[in-house]
Amino acid sequence: MTLEIDGDIDTAVHRQVEVVLRRYLAQRRAELPELAQTFAAAVDTLSDFALRGGKRIRPTFAWWGWRAAGGEGSGPRAEAVLTAVTALELIQTCALVHDDLMDASELRRGRPTVHVRFTGAHRAGAWLGEPERFGMAAAILLGDLALAWADDLFTGAPLPEEMRRAAREPWLAMRAEMFAGQYLDVLAQAEGDESEDRALGVARLKTAAYTVERPLHLGVAFAGAGQDTVDAVRTFGTDIGVAFQLRDDLLGVYGDTEVTGKPAGDDLREGKRTLLVSLGLRYAEEAGRHAEADLLRAALGDPDLTRGTIERVRELLVEVGAVDELERRIAALTNSGMAALDASGLAEPGRTRLADLAIAATRRDR
Amino acid sequence: MTLEIDGDIDTAVHRQVEVVLRRYLAQRRAELPELAQTFAAAVDTLSDFALRGGKRIRPTFAWWGWRAAGGEGSGPRAEAVLTAVTALELIQTCALVHDDLMDASELRRGRPTVHVRFTGAHRAGAWLGEPERFGMAAAILLGDLALAWADDLFTGAPLPEEMRRAAREPWLAMRAEMFAGQYLDVLAQAEGDESEDRALGVARLKTAAYTVERPLHLGVAFAGAGQDTVDAVRTFGTDIGVAFQLRDDLLGVYGDTEVTGKPAGDDLREGKRTLLVSLGLRYAEEAGRHAEADLLRAALGDPDLTRGTIERVRELLVEVGAVDELERRIAALTNSGMAALDASGLAEPGRTRLADLAIAATRRDR
Repeated sequence: MTLEIDGDIDTAVHRQVEVVLRRYLAQRRAELPELAQTFAAAVDTLSDFALRGGKRIRPTFAWWGWRAAGGEGSGPRAEAVLTAVTALELIQTCALVHDDLMDASELRRGRPTVHVRFTGAHRAGAWLGEPERFGMAAAILLGDLALAWADDLFTGAPLPEEMRRAAREPWLAMRAEMFAGQYLDVLAQAEGDESEDRALGVARLKTAAYTVERPLHLGVAFAGAGQDTVDAVRTFGTDIGVAFQLRDDLLGVYGDTEVTGKPAGDDLREGKRTLLVSLGLRYAEEAGRHAEADLLRAALGDPDLTRGTIERVRELLVEVGAVDELERRIAALTNSGMAALDASGLAEPGRTRLADLAIAATRRDR
Repeated sequence: MTLEIDGDIDTAVHRQVEVVLRRYLAQRRAELPELAQTFAAAVDTLSDFALRGGKRIRPTFAWWGWRAAGGEGSGPRAEAVLTAVTALELIQTCALVHDDLMDASELRRGRPTVHVRFTGAHRAGAWLGEPERFGMAAAILLGDLALAWADDLFTGAPLPEEMRRAAREPWLAMRAEMFAGQYLDVLAQAEGDESEDRALGVARLKTAAYTVERPLHLGVAFAGAGQDTVDAVRTFGTDIGVAFQLRDDLLGVYGDTEVTGKPAGDDLREGKRTLLVSLGLRYAEEAGRHAEADLLRAALGDPDLTRGTIERVRELLVEVGAVDELERRIAALTNSGMAALDASGLAEPGRTRLADLAIAATRRDR
């Protein structure tokens, strides 16, 4: 498969990833057999979802890992690496489509989620059976397709055998860790787990490993990095990735709908067991504010959560010091991550770009 | 990755596939990070499901395609091919886990389905939230994991570059066609589609392509087969695969629970739009038996379907001649498939084994 890249990659990684993604999705759609034309129409919904918005953060980290470990910024090999790392966006497409279904989320990036769109099509057509069941089936199958296509894109990139071999460990680990993290997240919600360790474990697997550490590992592995470099970027990636998730925890409770594309207080409504919640519960109990801790417990996973309750939970988490503690941890993790990056011996311009990405991923106004 | 094979493959393909599968699942489980130990327990349920029962029909067709096109029966290359084709079982694991969830099936191979097991664990633990939602999330994530691990197993088989390249087309097509076929199946159920073309389209993609044609294509591609051989096995595979699905249509209505591992009349209860149903409706209308055609329509997708109604539908489909017509088509497809095999120039013992498999897949007492 050849997907030609127009122009410089370094100056617009995000846009070049979208170019590869758009061409690849169009190509795979065109290859569908004549018999599957109604499926092709469903694939258009998936493509629309994958191409509309998103920060392309995983391929961007992978690209700069490649560059920082000495990979070329242009030429056939650089284009093949760009193609391979674009596959991370299709894994993310699967993760989002399936996650929205599991969480029964109505909105993503300010628009209806995939299962909601197909539920709506069923309802509009007054079809047989339950609309929600049809929406579920379509979202499961399209997410599966995105996952299979991610592998096809990754393995189809025209790279020499030694680069493929080097990339195998992070590629395998990343996907297994992502599913593990998602499962732990769902399990923690079900068990009503209040432990900080569990919340951090989810952040470690679901976000740090999947979003920062392994994409970077993949990028430097493509560049043939030695063990020291791999260790350094994994430390950097883990710290920045956990900090990224802690920032996400705060946005999930305090974030502006206009920015997050999700309803206010969505994490509370979904009952997410974040570190913010774990700390908030512990601090509230330690301060003798048991009734307010119970209010927070009751808010978690309450589908009918009111604005008033969200506001009270927001105030509580500030008052007991959970928000301050999260900010402290984000700052400490960002600092330790940066120290690992400084000590890594990575090359410019990749190194500075990774530092910039780390700041962008963890800052307050993300 | 090395997975050692003990003993001869030809004499026990089914068992050798299970040996590879068992070792691979154990290896991937052992690689999960320490943090993911609760996920490892969930993976045990997936492994148990993948390893318990199943005819291993897809890797078996692929293996005999390899052998019939001249591939060795033993040695490192044969073992690598066996490893690669075992990946088909993990795709099937994903397909079954997700399909059971989409169809809300309670039983598979006579035991509770994966989503039902996790729903039960949630209920037994009196956890937070809806048990069904937890069961759904676990089944989605474990199915996804099986799909990712299928790719990892396939791409990790130690095969030379030219064999990988040759296998790429069937590997890509097979997965896309399977998801397309499943979507078409769900859509036909929702739309209440009574057309024979649609029912045959689903059989063509969901069963023929995915279960017989593409596995065979994969096997002969590994052996470096030329276009004529590829065309011949694809024709054979398509005909036998459609016949296999038509046999399945009959078993879905007339099958013995003890044999199918599913409740009697399950296809009717799920509202499957099979060729048997399409023909039954058309023949009943043509015979002026409108009330009975409506009885069949009402039975499709009725969750509370009674034994009495199943019995009446069974009688109707026989009386109007739909069952006889299906038997005629199965016989005709089997014959045309066999003719393509005869003309293929494939080698023994593979050729005879493929003929035996075709008979086994399509006969009445399957």
